Amino acid sequence: MELTHIEHLGIAVKSIEACLPYYEGVLGLKCYNIEEVADQKVKTAFFKVGQTKIELLEPTSEDSTIAKFIEKKGEGIHHLAFAVEDGVQNALTELEGKGVKLIDKAPRKGAEGLNIAFLHPKSTIGVLTELCEKPE
Amino acid sequence: MELTHIEHLGIAVKSIEACLPYYEGVLGLKCYNIEEVADQKVKTAFFKVGQTKIELLEPTSEDSTIAKFIEKKGEGIHHLAFAVEDGVQNALTELEGKGVKLIDKAPRKGAEGLNIAFLHPKSTIGVLTELCEKPE
Repeated sequence: MELTHIEHLGIAVKSIEACLPYYEGVLGLKCYNIEEVADQKVKTAFFKVGQTKIELLEPTSEDSTIAKFIEKKGEGIHHLAFAVEDGVQNALTELEGKGVKLIDKAPRKGAEGLNIAFLHPKSTIGVLTELCEKPE
Repeated sequence: MELTHIEHLGIAVKSIEACLPYYEGVLGLKCYNIEEVADQKVKTAFFKVGQTKIELLEPTSEDSTIAKFIEKKGEGIHHLAFAVEDGVQNALTELEGKGVKLIDKAPRKGAEGLNIAFLHPKSTIGVLTELCEKPE
């Protein structure tokens, strides 16, 4: 498994609209895409800074994991996503062999059509960690 | 102010030594530097992935802000640091003019000799945010 860069950083927010003046007006980043990921019950907004995307995550339902995260911890950084070079499935197989606990045993579709999988924060020292790759 | 990339991601941990098997052995990243930042009462360990460093922060004293963070929230992502193109002082002046609350009103020295300053999370929608630049 080779991690090439930080693909994105997921940030839980109550309202994407309320964040735009900060991310665009203050930080000077440009929101280039807003999309809904129905099975995660979130709306996502994307900004790019260098190699990395900032992905704002707004819950679209009270039972979204993002809604629960905000309720428990407040708005803030939710997860860290690495781009992997040689396939998410290969990485999962390797990591499971090394004793890493997985949330996703197989890749699934995430925002922007990426193949993604989450590792369990119990194995990643408190950081909810995602692996991503662009589909072939 | 122009943000060029995510310079680093600060992650609060109880023990750097206990993290090395995960960051090096599991993720395959290489720890290239460990240093103490005395005035922050932390020991830091650095890994590089693409343009971005992962900076593990281990408290060296119980009254370190990192010790308090871990006590309150557990181990996890502590702050997000952007590299700025045109100087931290210029950025702070611009941001203050836009109503952003600052922790540091002027740049100070951070790990690896960078000029750094923190913005206040009340102004940054829950994300403790740092600006960095390499000194001239």
